[in-house]
Amino acid sequence: MQTNRIYNFNAGPAALPESVLEEIRESFLNFDGSGMSITEISHRSKWFDDVINDAVARTKRLLKLDERFRVLFIQGGASMQFCMIPMNFLADGQSADYADTGTWSSKAIQEAQLQNKPVKVVASSKDKNYSYIPKEIEFSADARYVHLTSNNTIKGTQWAGFPDTGSVPLVLDMSSDIMSRPIDSDKIGLIYAGAQKNIGPAGVCMVIVRDDMLETIPDNIPSMLKYTTYTAKNSMYNTPPCFSIYTVQLVLKWLEETVGGLEKMEAINQKKSDLLYNFFDSSDFYQGTAELSSRSKMNVTFRLPDEELEKTFVALAMQEGLGGLKGHRSVGGCRASIYNATTITGVETLVDFMKSFESQNG
Amino acid sequence: MQTNRIYNFNAGPAALPESVLEEIRESFLNFDGSGMSITEISHRSKWFDDVINDAVARTKRLLKLDERFRVLFIQGGASMQFCMIPMNFLADGQSADYADTGTWSSKAIQEAQLQNKPVKVVASSKDKNYSYIPKEIEFSADARYVHLTSNNTIKGTQWAGFPDTGSVPLVLDMSSDIMSRPIDSDKIGLIYAGAQKNIGPAGVCMVIVRDDMLETIPDNIPSMLKYTTYTAKNSMYNTPPCFSIYTVQLVLKWLEETVGGLEKMEAINQKKSDLLYNFFDSSDFYQGTAELSSRSKMNVTFRLPDEELEKTFVALAMQEGLGGLKGHRSVGGCRASIYNATTITGVETLVDFMKSFESQNG
Repeated sequence: MQTNRIYNFNAGPAALPESVLEEIRESFLNFDGSGMSITEISHRSKWFDDVINDAVARTKRLLKLDERFRVLFIQGGASMQFCMIPMNFLADGQSADYADTGTWSSKAIQEAQLQNKPVKVVASSKDKNYSYIPKEIEFSADARYVHLTSNNTIKGTQWAGFPDTGSVPLVLDMSSDIMSRPIDSDKIGLIYAGAQKNIGPAGVCMVIVRDDMLETIPDNIPSMLKYTTYTAKNSMYNTPPCFSIYTVQLVLKWLEETVGGLEKMEAINQKKSDLLYNFFDSSDFYQGTAELSSRSKMNVTFRLPDEELEKTFVALAMQEGLGGLKGHRSVGGCRASIYNATTITGVETLVDFMKSFESQNG
Repeated sequence: MQTNRIYNFNAGPAALPESVLEEIRESFLNFDGSGMSITEISHRSKWFDDVINDAVARTKRLLKLDERFRVLFIQGGASMQFCMIPMNFLADGQSADYADTGTWSSKAIQEAQLQNKPVKVVASSKDKNYSYIPKEIEFSADARYVHLTSNNTIKGTQWAGFPDTGSVPLVLDMSSDIMSRPIDSDKIGLIYAGAQKNIGPAGVCMVIVRDDMLETIPDNIPSMLKYTTYTAKNSMYNTPPCFSIYTVQLVLKWLEETVGGLEKMEAINQKKSDLLYNFFDSSDFYQGTAELSSRSKMNVTFRLPDEELEKTFVALAMQEGLGGLKGHRSVGGCRASIYNATTITGVETLVDFMKSFESQNG
């Protein structure tokens, strides 16, 4: 790590691999010999075609997606997907199942309801402040899709695996854990992920959609809100968010070529989260907020004995070059987001700091 | 200009001021002493608050907007605005006037019609292949708004001034000429502009809206498509496109502090377009495609005697470091986009090349 950089535990926008940032900087005034910045080249040029096509190809290889899947880049973040999914997939008489596992699930449900789309909340962990992932859910056999939030950034919980939904396709918000582990694509109808946590900067949402999901989209949806607009034009019906897509491409290249794929990434993420959770379990000072079997490997949420200590902890950590440890403003406490680009060294440094803080304040 | 950079006449994404690119590069791994890249900092941090608030304040100063106006940053480009404008402003029984002056106007009209919103096309220049800006238009006194495309990127025409619409507010697509000249904000209800031509990179659309326009927005619009979602949260209801907004902020700083404001920018743009148009008018070889009184100061469209010569011209120009001169794929011919960041030296170099090409092929 360059000495003037911090260890960044932000929840999103979040840390990016330093080698990616360096590559962007190196070529920022002259991308690929074009004599232009990546921010100045036409999205209709061969230069940009190569960028977006490479990002699509790497996504398919990394997630082992077969030819049924399309990879799209859409603006508006996951929040725009909350609106587009019911708009595109719930025609008259159709309904969808949603699991409510936290703030973002709830918002996804609300945006469907706002459009008067029938949604059934088949599971919720609201009873225990969203501290766990529901089990033994009864899904509707006639649901158009089942919507799950794969990882809950704010509450620090994560689906360890996805439940059996029979023949009903899964629609997954993977904003905070996409590319952090391999997935079984068999049951997937659609995946979406705001890039700014695991795969890039803010400003673009990756959407992976299975071909058959596109067959029933109504005609009268505004062009920019219709998935087929994006599939028909390789995400370039209008000018796409070029810089964000380019950065995603570089992160995917790093995942494939430097990390060595998602199995290796998963092992690294396991090690990072083990470092923190094993430490919690040996300490009476730091308490994890998620139930053990639902703990997230991406967002590690914890409390200290009181709020004053939490404030001191966050401030002192920042002074030591450990940033972004404050919990989400809606829940308080502390949170270490340890996405793909967070290094083992960074997590070890954090644990050392936590030990030292405990010994001085415990 | 750095010697490995070209003169960039792309229509969008387009040239950015070199000093802005250099500033981004310099601080790319450590923004404002944060120890993080601008792509890694939280949008809820003071660092980013300062960026977005400065962009808003500079926009208001540059365009001399009074306190009635709000400046927003929305994803999805101008194309998303084509959909949001009728969705937000045309309640049951309300209709809007549109002038059809080219591809983007037509798309704006189509997106309103797709939602079954009543729109009246009060003027069109389709009869002459959109080569002119209509005059003496009769507007509807009861229209909710009048929609105009301020500058037509593809056809190379521009409204020299805006027509009198009585008490009906103007809604302007200024994607390709925002901040290129001062405007009279008196009649403006809303301005929108995809950033990637005059004020930044792709991935963000600036929207300027007058407070009273917000009073009649229906409640049942999806959150991400409702202007009040953005006004309520300073454009940060969800994670905004941070890097694009940051770059816009730097371009606005350049406009204020280096160029010296929009009167000065307009004089420079006048000089650049005069260089090209005066040269056309002295040549039988190059023919401008727009009617004289409708010529754009941003996109200078022209033809050579035949298509083969046009291909040679574009290819040879590129070899000489003059890029992006091919006309839009829907109309053919040639086009020099000379937005704010295109330099007088760049345009002079282009005219010299054109003279030399004519002498060898004329």
